[in-house]
Amino acid sequence: MQKNLTLYNFNTSYSFGKEEKKEKEQSVTSKLTRLKESYEKEGQRRAVEGIIIVHDHGHPHILLLQDNSYFKLPGGKLKPGENDVEGLIRKLTKKLSPTGTSVADSPWEIGDHVSTWWRPNFEPTLYPYIPTHITKPKECKKMFVVTLPEKCKFAVSNELSLIAVSLYEIYNNSQRYGPVISSIPALISKYNFVCLNVDN
Amino acid sequence: MQKNLTLYNFNTSYSFGKEEKKEKEQSVTSKLTRLKESYEKEGQRRAVEGIIIVHDHGHPHILLLQDNSYFKLPGGKLKPGENDVEGLIRKLTKKLSPTGTSVADSPWEIGDHVSTWWRPNFEPTLYPYIPTHITKPKECKKMFVVTLPEKCKFAVSNELSLIAVSLYEIYNNSQRYGPVISSIPALISKYNFVCLNVDN
Ligand SMILES: [Zn+2]
Ligand SMILES: [Zn+2]
Ligand SMILES: [Zn+2]
Ligand SMILES: [Zn+2]
Repeated sequence: MQKNLTLYNFNTSYSFGKEEKKEKEQSVTSKLTRLKESYEKEGQRRAVEGIIIVHDHGHPHILLLQDNSYFKLPGGKLKPGENDVEGLIRKLTKKLSPTGTSVADSPWEIGDHVSTWWRPNFEPTLYPYIPTHITKPKECKKMFVVTLPEKCKFAVSNELSLIAVSLYEIYNNSQRYGPVISSIPALISKYNFVCLNVDN
Repeated sequence: MQKNLTLYNFNTSYSFGKEEKKEKEQSVTSKLTRLKESYEKEGQRRAVEGIIIVHDHGHPHILLLQDNSYFKLPGGKLKPGENDVEGLIRKLTKKLSPTGTSVADSPWEIGDHVSTWWRPNFEPTLYPYIPTHITKPKECKKMFVVTLPEKCKFAVSNELSLIAVSLYEIYNNSQRYGPVISSIPALISKYNFVCLNVDN
């Protein structure tokens, strides 16, 4: 009845690199400016993010991109008409795989769509529902569970770190991680995790 | 791609009654005492709860049982060996349907299992994961989405109220509703709600 998810050990199963990758300016103001521009051109921004689950010594962890004191899930904006899952694979490959990795060679195993967040206004706050009497939310962001095969190569932008954070660390910690990331432990609690390559 | 859930209007689609029903003593101490007794006899307590979703004027709401300032989801303890879904139907019928309603006549449409919560010790706190190095959690509680048909009769214990609370009210409000109930908006955000019988 419970769905199994097979997890591999983050540090000993995977290899890591840094690369020159163009990251868009991450300040709140520049993100909201880009959102306004895209809303005027294409309407509601459709975004997707991956909850990549690994383990560390048998304990489930989530992969986050860290930019100083700011944490985010890997993902991004879909192209007009682009399919959720195809767009997520494209974005994860661009942000987390060595340059030149083709989508066909990418390691991402996209699982369930587990939550949807809405941005009612050109403001930072997201809600897990469309707030009352908002008819045109500015953004809709869908989160998908992602698992990895036994071997996987990561390469992230020089400015960012890829970190694995335990469920214990993010649960009930929206002060540090925000409401979206801190909701992840509840969202994935329905799975039964099978941890392989546990080194003790 | 998004899963639809059909919702009916709480106050105008359903009828409500009050009955003499035996409710177990709800104080924290007496609940923990019962948990200890059942753990000694049967091992880990297995419980199930229903997230019953309705709408009020087209806005999704969750049904909660209120006992003064204490709120809970309808559900309860499974019998040894009892199946999750059968046990949930039995418990919902017992707590929310008029006395004498048979399980076969009950209105509950049991949907997805959306989260699992663990009680590591004989204490009130639940977590959406098994905390590190806990090998024998005392309780495992599974939450299922439940929807209703167009017509439905409720009857709850004289001491309790059955209330419909908006997602807006419970989101980010673990102070009033606790971490389990306040996580519900994120857990059900993946659904597309289709609200019928909307009266304006
Ligand atoms: Zn470690
Ligand atoms: Zn450990
Ligand atoms: Zn109303
Ligand atoms: Zn309204």
